[in-house]
Amino acid sequence: MTYTSWGWELFFEGSEKKVEVIVKPEIGSLRDFGKDFWKDMVARCNATILSEVSNEKCDAYLLSESSLFVWDHSFLMITCGSTMLINSVQHFLGRVRRDEIESIIYQRKNEYGPWLQKTSFAQDVERLQTMVDGVSTRFGYLDEHHTYMFHLDKDFKPKTNDTTTEVLMYHIQGSAAETLRCQNQTIDSVRKFMNLEDFFSDFQVDDFCFDPCGYSLNAIKDDKYVTIHVTPQEQSSYVSFETNVNLQQDYPGLVDRLLETFQPFSFDVVDFNTKTELAPSGKMVKINNFQDRLSCGYDVNFSHFIVPLDRIEKPTTIKGNIL
Amino acid sequence: MTYTSWGWELFFEGSEKKVEVIVKPEIGSLRDFGKDFWKDMVARCNATILSEVSNEKCDAYLLSESSLFVWDHSFLMITCGSTMLINSVQHFLGRVRRDEIESIIYQRKNEYGPWLQKTSFAQDVERLQTMVDGVSTRFGYLDEHHTYMFHLDKDFKPKTNDTTTEVLMYHIQGSAAETLRCQNQTIDSVRKFMNLEDFFSDFQVDDFCFDPCGYSLNAIKDDKYVTIHVTPQEQSSYVSFETNVNLQQDYPGLVDRLLETFQPFSFDVVDFNTKTELAPSGKMVKINNFQDRLSCGYDVNFSHFIVPLDRIEKPTTIKGNIL
Repeated sequence: MTYTSWGWELFFEGSEKKVEVIVKPEIGSLRDFGKDFWKDMVARCNATILSEVSNEKCDAYLLSESSLFVWDHSFLMITCGSTMLINSVQHFLGRVRRDEIESIIYQRKNEYGPWLQKTSFAQDVERLQTMVDGVSTRFGYLDEHHTYMFHLDKDFKPKTNDTTTEVLMYHIQGSAAETLRCQNQTIDSVRKFMNLEDFFSDFQVDDFCFDPCGYSLNAIKDDKYVTIHVTPQEQSSYVSFETNVNLQQDYPGLVDRLLETFQPFSFDVVDFNTKTELAPSGKMVKINNFQDRLSCGYDVNFSHFIVPLDRIEKPTTIKGNIL
Repeated sequence: MTYTSWGWELFFEGSEKKVEVIVKPEIGSLRDFGKDFWKDMVARCNATILSEVSNEKCDAYLLSESSLFVWDHSFLMITCGSTMLINSVQHFLGRVRRDEIESIIYQRKNEYGPWLQKTSFAQDVERLQTMVDGVSTRFGYLDEHHTYMFHLDKDFKPKTNDTTTEVLMYHIQGSAAETLRCQNQTIDSVRKFMNLEDFFSDFQVDDFCFDPCGYSLNAIKDDKYVTIHVTPQEQSSYVSFETNVNLQQDYPGLVDRLLETFQPFSFDVVDFNTKTELAPSGKMVKINNFQDRLSCGYDVNFSHFIVPLDRIEKPTTIKGNIL
């Protein structure tokens, strides 16, 4: 991971870019493209593969900047920092024919420091539009939390079990946050704080503690995945949880437990073809809610929540060399 | 004003940069620097003077991008869009000696499109630090509404009547918003909607309707000023109100009236050496509150409020050419 010395502390952009591509079965298995292809794919956005786990359905790669999951007929790549995921997308599109692609969703979360990114979402779309025809949309206000999506403008029927839940947490607080900010965490200590052992009991887990801090986890079971990325830095803390497990059905209450553990000041829930229900909480305020059915067949629901602070805060003094 | 064609509509960055400088009386009157000096000052950040009003204490210039107020021993310059106010500051510092300056506060509000700005706050500070010694601070979280401030790290005692109130409103709604979005507004129609006639009854008012939309107002009375800037564009609407009038004492309820008129989804209040009290409102949530006494002698209070939406919104489709 590349850190930016940004005056007050080591700044790291946890907010993620994400691409999910579904191809036609006729193409053969994407996993047969081979490790070198995917290694190259990851290298294109200046990330590297740290480790990998596999089962009969999925290859899951833990990256220096987030994660890559490859199934037979789809892949999901998530990258953070200042990586240019768009380069990897272009690399993939150089390998397949347009008519072999069923769906592309290229997504970008609002960043803590958008001016520190090498490209804007709009610039990424400009490049995508030279390769495929798509539509761009933004869930959320421009000056609040939001997520951008570019997707093919093409009718597609996702499988009934093709659901995704993202829970994106900001400004984590409490003992988990304090512990995670300490350097030299071990995998065992982080797992203990996350308190998800029962959830993962039958998953294959691959996780990593970064230096000086930060934590990533991939977990797979059959064709299901869970991925967690923790950027604990105080001024820009961010924890993302994403899964294609049907949480409502199989793990009700899990999102509530995540919120209890990380105690975020604010968080966003992004649902694709599912609907996350949260336990009522006295202090939590749903700030806004954006919904739409994308022309590529997914019902998307974006909600932004805040837990208002009842304390008065000191501003952040910015010292030393500033980018 | 320079508009950016940004896919969905004409995008204009209403969020402002602001500099307030106080000089020692020994320097003579800043107003005696002459119109050409201030015209040049404005030109340095690619703005122009549209009109001006004066009284015995103050020259108030309405700019193509916001406002400039010049008193004998201080000035206040506010600019929006993609202007580089830092250039104007540098121009001013080229004219005076460092020991003639009592206070500089250079402020920058979070932008709707920070990646569309020519410099970041951090880059501005880098230039400021080559000219004067100062301290940088941020009120508000990086991923929420916030305001950056750079100020001299120098003991200064502001006069007791040196107070400032900023009310910065986002995503205006209701009939005023709808009307303001219509092209070809007249000064009379905007004034009527703003409903501030009684407030301004003894002020000298100078206001302007921009093409295709947008409105600016300067008003002065003795050494008091009020300035209002309206960017009504639906995806990035922004209304700023700023004054050195002691609202609590002389015009209680005025901020509540502004909020009733513009019905913002969210707004920020920034107070310098004063404290704005708002009438309790059932739906309004104070999201956070940052306070500090700056080493240059001002007590600053920043609060971010949201009026949560009880409706579900459609996302914004981004069409056509995107920057």
